[in-house]
Parts: sequence; structure tokens; C-alpha cells
Amino acid sequence: MIETLSTNRAFGGTQGVYRHASAQTGTPMTFSVFVPDHAPGATLPVVWYLSGLTCTHANVTEKGEFRRACSDLGLMFVAPDTSPRGSDVPDDEAYDFGQGAGFYVDATQAPWATHFRMRSYIEQELPAIIAAQFPADMARQGIMGHSMGGHGALTIALRNPGRFAAVSAFAPIVSPLHCPWGDKALTGYIGADKTAWRAYDACALIADGARVPDILVDQGGADNFLTDQLKPHLLVEACDAAGIPLTLTMREGHDHSYYFISTFMEGHLRWHAERLRA
Amino acid sequence: MIETLSTNRAFGGTQGVYRHASAQTGTPMTFSVFVPDHAPGATLPVVWYLSGLTCTHANVTEKGEFRRACSDLGLMFVAPDTSPRGSDVPDDEAYDFGQGAGFYVDATQAPWATHFRMRSYIEQELPAIIAAQFPADMARQGIMGHSMGGHGALTIALRNPGRFAAVSAFAPIVSPLHCPWGDKALTGYIGADKTAWRAYDACALIADGARVPDILVDQGGADNFLTDQLKPHLLVEACDAAGIPLTLTMREGHDHSYYFISTFMEGHLRWHAERLRA
Repeated sequence: MIETLSTNRAFGGTQGVYRHASAQTGTPMTFSVFVPDHAPGATLPVVWYLSGLTCTHANVTEKGEFRRACSDLGLMFVAPDTSPRGSDVPDDEAYDFGQGAGFYVDATQAPWATHFRMRSYIEQELPAIIAAQFPADMARQGIMGHSMGGHGALTIALRNPGRFAAVSAFAPIVSPLHCPWGDKALTGYIGADKTAWRAYDACALIADGARVPDILVDQGGADNFLTDQLKPHLLVEACDAAGIPLTLTMREGHDHSYYFISTFMEGHLRWHAERLRA
Repeated sequence: MIETLSTNRAFGGTQGVYRHASAQTGTPMTFSVFVPDHAPGATLPVVWYLSGLTCTHANVTEKGEFRRACSDLGLMFVAPDTSPRGSDVPDDEAYDFGQGAGFYVDATQAPWATHFRMRSYIEQELPAIIAAQFPADMARQGIMGHSMGGHGALTIALRNPGRFAAVSAFAPIVSPLHCPWGDKALTGYIGADKTAWRAYDACALIADGARVPDILVDQGGADNFLTDQLKPHLLVEACDAAGIPLTLTMREGHDHSYYFISTFMEGHLRWHAERLRA
């Protein structure tokens, strides 16, 4: 059962926002889906967009500028929330841990383990809902994300070989093992044993043998988080060593904001469409 | 003197947000300007966008999806606030009067007259700042707006013949004399004498002889405010009687939101560009 919170006509399609009771997180979860108009009975490829720290479904839904290209290309666009939320859910005062900062992991540590099951939510529960409730062709899926959501997109694709024909990211966290955001979040959610972190680190997953066909990354050259947190050179090194084709474009002058994401969104969607039509 | 609050690279240009001390309103006023990249020393046509009830500069700046088309077309895009703001400024509990609801008038009634001078702010003060501080070709200006801002765009263009080569609106209030929003706002700001309202009513201005070359309007067919507040047929009748070419397109299924505006923004910008290049 999903509840429709809103639907709006836009760009030759319908932008919806929905809520459901999640078995994984034990909370109501909100997500948005854009469905381009299509022939009755037709199904559409699905592009997943995972958001970054502090975001809900709403940030990309309002600021992502994806609808025009999705309509042109016939792509469904799904934007989940970044964590369980609510007064019964543990939280942290910091912006980079707790609610709004689920890091797409299944937490094992108290008090997080009960609700913070964003890996299983994104990998299992929400796809089943999308398959059942929307005109989705689940044989044709792509995944993208921004920052923490770029980490989510890369790691989920690497852990589920064959599921996603297209994988891309805007300014992703490429190695939680090697940045302060990752260190804080994975210590808190998964515990101090860093061998357990490797399932949640794109570079480690690649080093350990996981593969995707290719990867598209755009990175702002004026991004404040570039040097200390994002470190795209680590992904370059991992892909080079593994023989994974990586198209990494540095965008000079661009920062970490939705002004950056929206500018390059169409290019990412075209990358996905090329791979999802095949 | 204007203060730069933020600049972000986007779509081959720079999105800025600025603040200045307004002599007209007696308050700090915030506005946004998008400037596409251009040759050194070049100037660009200017499109003004006036926002609707409850909005600041930020709504269209974040959700309007105008930057791509403005870059393609070489248009500067200016988005002012909708009223003076601050704890020293009179306000009203309602969403449709007071702060966030300036209606682009110069108020004459207490306590509004001191600060609520949005007509003079938009017609005189802010254009002088844009001309002085940005690479603007003030001989090539267009104006558009949404809802209350559509009212602003139409009335400002009609009162300033020759200034704007292009005039358009999304779901505009076309006659404050004939809708509850207008009745409340103009009674409050201007007083009960409705002859004084005619300078702030697009249909009355046209009936009284004001002219613009032509007008583009898009109106959502599923707009909740269509029947009681917006009444586009009144503008059709006024333009027909005056011989002003009006291109009014009803957009079935579309509502009053930025999902509607963003969908048709590119079409409006192309309309402006055609008229501003001449």
C-alpha cells in the first residue's frame, strides 16, 4: 500500500510524491517518481537517483531539472529519501550522521540498527514497490546519485552485478574508508572493524573484484569537499587497476550544489538512456 | 552598493543572489540575476521575472528551470523579491497580504505606505541597479511573471510603453478589480476608491488606452485559482476590444505550481528572445 501525497503535471509526464510504511526501516518513507506519458500497457526504463547528505526526495525533485530530459528519453525517475525519519528514530545533531545521512547501509550498531536499513530498503523493498505500482521495466534500470548518494549508487551497482545497465554519479564519495564523512558514518553505523566497511566502499568493492560495465562521473572543480572528502583520484586508480572504463569530467568553476547537478543532469540521463535502450 | 550573497556556476553562466539597501522600500532587498557567459564588454538583453504570492527571489531561482534556455538564447534573467521584509515592516497573518504579497503597487494607506513601494522599486530603483552593475542592454528588456507577478508584469509593461519589447505571464491575475485577491490587496494598500485601482489592473489599463505590442499567456487548466481569481477571459475580452494580439494557451492538467511554470518557461524565453533580438 502506498499513499499518494501529490501529483503534478510537468514536461509531458506526471511528477508524483508517495509515502508507504517501510518494513525495512519501520517508519513511513517518502519517495518521488516522475513517469513520462506513455502508451497504455507500456513499461519504461527506471533511473534511480540517490541524494546526498541533508536531502530528502524533495531536493532533486524540485531542483534537479531532470523532467524535460526524462520525457524526451522515456525514462522513469525515482528519488528516495536518504534515511528513516521521525521522532521515534535515533538522530544526531550533526548534518552528516543520523537522520538525513543514512549512507545507504544496513546499520549493525545500536541504536541505529533497528531503523537505519537503507541498503535493504533501496536494494530490495523499494524496487518491489516500484515494480508493482508503476509502469516500470525492471529489466532496464540505471542508478545515479550525488555525493553520499553517489556513494550509494556506485556501491549498490557494484554489489548487484547485472541489475543496472548504467551507473553514474555527481561528485560522489568514492571511498568512505578514506574520508572523514565515511569514517564517522561507518564507525557509527557498522562499527570499528573496517573489514566490514569494504561492502560500502566503491573503491574497495572494485579492488575486491566487483565490476560494472562502465561509470560516468562529473565533479565540480570548485567543490569545497573535493580534496578532503570526495577524492575522485581514488576511483580513477581503482577503475584503472580493474579495467573499468571511467568517464570522469572535471567541471571547472562548479561547486557541490544543485546548480552543478542540474547543469549536467541531461548529460547523465542521455548516458543512461543509451545503455537502457540496448 | 550591492552585496553579493552567493554566486554559482550553472548552465554556462553565473547565478548570483544580491542584496542592497532600497531607498524606495527602506529595507534591504534581495534579488537574483543569472548572467550567461558573454564576450568581454558585451551587453545582454534583460528578462524580468516577477514572482507570485508567498514567493521570494528564491522560488523561481531554484525551481524555474530558466538557466539552460537563457544561456542558449543569451538572456539575462532578473528575479526580484515580492515585497519589503523584516521585523520593522508591517505584515499580515494571511498569505495574500503584507510581506510576500506586495502586489507591485506603491501603497498609499497606513501602515503600508512607508515600505510597500514595489511599483517604484521594480519600475525605477532596481532597473538603475541592473543597468549600473550588470552587463545589461537596457534598450532590450522583456518582462514576465507568475500569478501576482503576472499582474505585475502586465501592468508594469502597460504603464511603461516602449520599455519592454516582450511581455508574458504564467497564470496571471489579470484584473484585481474583479477578484478577491485584488480586492483585498488594493483596498488595503491603495484604499477604497476604485478609480485609483485602474493603474494596477491590466484589463482596466487596456480599456483606458494603454498598449503593448503583444502578450503571451499560459494558463493551467487544473489551476485551483482559475475561476475565482485569475479569470483569463477578462484579458481576452480586453485585448480583443483593444486589438492587442494575445496568445493564450490553456494547458490541460497543469496546476498553479512551478511544475507548470518550469514546463513552459523555455517557450516563454524563446518568445522573449525573438522580440529582444530584433
